[in-house]
Amino acid sequence: MSFIRTLSKRWEQSNSLLCVGLDPDTARFPESIAATENPLFEFNKAIVDATHDLVCAYKPQISYFAAERAEDQLLQTIEYIHREYPGIPVILDAKRGDIGSTASRYAVEAFERYGADAVTVNPYMGFDAIQPFTQYTDRGVIVLCRTSNAGASDFQDLLIDGEPLYQHVAQKVSTEWNTHDNCLLVVGATWPEQMAKVRSIVGDMPLLVPGVGAQGGDVKTMLEAGQTANGSGLIVNSSRGVLYASEGEDFQRAARAVAMSLRDEINSHRRS
Amino acid sequence: MSFIRTLSKRWEQSNSLLCVGLDPDTARFPESIAATENPLFEFNKAIVDATHDLVCAYKPQISYFAAERAEDQLLQTIEYIHREYPGIPVILDAKRGDIGSTASRYAVEAFERYGADAVTVNPYMGFDAIQPFTQYTDRGVIVLCRTSNAGASDFQDLLIDGEPLYQHVAQKVSTEWNTHDNCLLVVGATWPEQMAKVRSIVGDMPLLVPGVGAQGGDVKTMLEAGQTANGSGLIVNSSRGVLYASEGEDFQRAARAVAMSLRDEINSHRRS
Repeated sequence: MSFIRTLSKRWEQSNSLLCVGLDPDTARFPESIAATENPLFEFNKAIVDATHDLVCAYKPQISYFAAERAEDQLLQTIEYIHREYPGIPVILDAKRGDIGSTASRYAVEAFERYGADAVTVNPYMGFDAIQPFTQYTDRGVIVLCRTSNAGASDFQDLLIDGEPLYQHVAQKVSTEWNTHDNCLLVVGATWPEQMAKVRSIVGDMPLLVPGVGAQGGDVKTMLEAGQTANGSGLIVNSSRGVLYASEGEDFQRAARAVAMSLRDEINSHRRS
Repeated sequence: MSFIRTLSKRWEQSNSLLCVGLDPDTARFPESIAATENPLFEFNKAIVDATHDLVCAYKPQISYFAAERAEDQLLQTIEYIHREYPGIPVILDAKRGDIGSTASRYAVEAFERYGADAVTVNPYMGFDAIQPFTQYTDRGVIVLCRTSNAGASDFQDLLIDGEPLYQHVAQKVSTEWNTHDNCLLVVGATWPEQMAKVRSIVGDMPLLVPGVGAQGGDVKTMLEAGQTANGSGLIVNSSRGVLYASEGEDFQRAARAVAMSLRDEINSHRRS
């Protein structure tokens, strides 16, 4: 089944556009987790167990595992989600981008080693850096377009023939790169005007939306800007806001409460 | 000591601008290497032993290790170079780029976990994605500018106020991001005109130059375009052309011969 179909089914089944980002920061774990042998996995497992019915996807961020020499715990996490909660897609947030021969190795890393359902990639190097990923036609390839951070404007907003670079990226991806119908785009929740513009360019292409919660994006404005005609089309990610709602032993309960409230807030602004 | 000084010393000591890229592709190893317990490390070790006096740097490409679940062999490789051949800087080719909190984890991965002397990064997300790396003031941060691949033109050549994006990147890095004097740029050997333009923008900033050898860049044209007034300023990388000069048991001898010939060809076009 294609990634877009897996995602659409999950949107419907869960009645949720919320994605929880798994950014396991060992400095913020409650003591009972920190004391275990595989704390990153145990933390993720606890978060997943507490939120699985509230989400349309999970998004582990690979750097948190790489910094801790804990690739095995990333694999454990993805395998755990697939085994215990089948139907929930896992997006590996890696933002890879390199020449074709190297991109092929990164595609093996994301899709074969870790078994991710989708991966984030960087468009700066152009199509041959993306193609090795899109050739996995049952997986999703999520291309950076307009990111949520302050520095995004350094290059993404520069005008080319009167239109900012990120719109050229949206155009290129939707009209040229998406031949296997497995491309998506990243557009930050912090930039609703830009999101509306991207939505007008790419039709119903799903958007991965970081930046609600810790990064400050407003849910209502973002939903108005980005949802499709049928009230869908968005994977709204929150990482730190959910994961560290409490840093004490009640972290599962706190994470669930924040996730539920965010899911409901998102749903309250969806077109039905 | 700063990365730029380490590099300058090594340029002088080795009388070489050649960098050998370590892209260990298990499918191309001679049998004696393939049969070992840590074949990626053993291959790299053999290549390093055969070429160490001919190079100014080594550049392991992390994706080849990640695809093989062999992060430990990447670490072994970097530790081996530092221990056996002190003074040769190691550039981790990873092309990372993400929001600040995530970029900090990637900086830990590159500089603390692996102990790399420099790392390649992607400018698309802007300065806050780069700053966590530049804050390691004794390490080098090598920003993609005009890459060597065909798809480079998709976005890097788009004109903004009459100047292509890659020139805006060169400008931004050299005038705003380089406050710790530890930034460098990637400019492909396959684009000498663009390299000359970048050189005119960034003064003596060192350039990492992929694309000679397997990718087809011409050495003479590239040297004319990119070297500084004193005949230096370039880290000229060859990976596959050196590593797989022979795929038989004579691979060390063959790699050394290609590396020596490339070093000499480069030196023959340097201003003295």
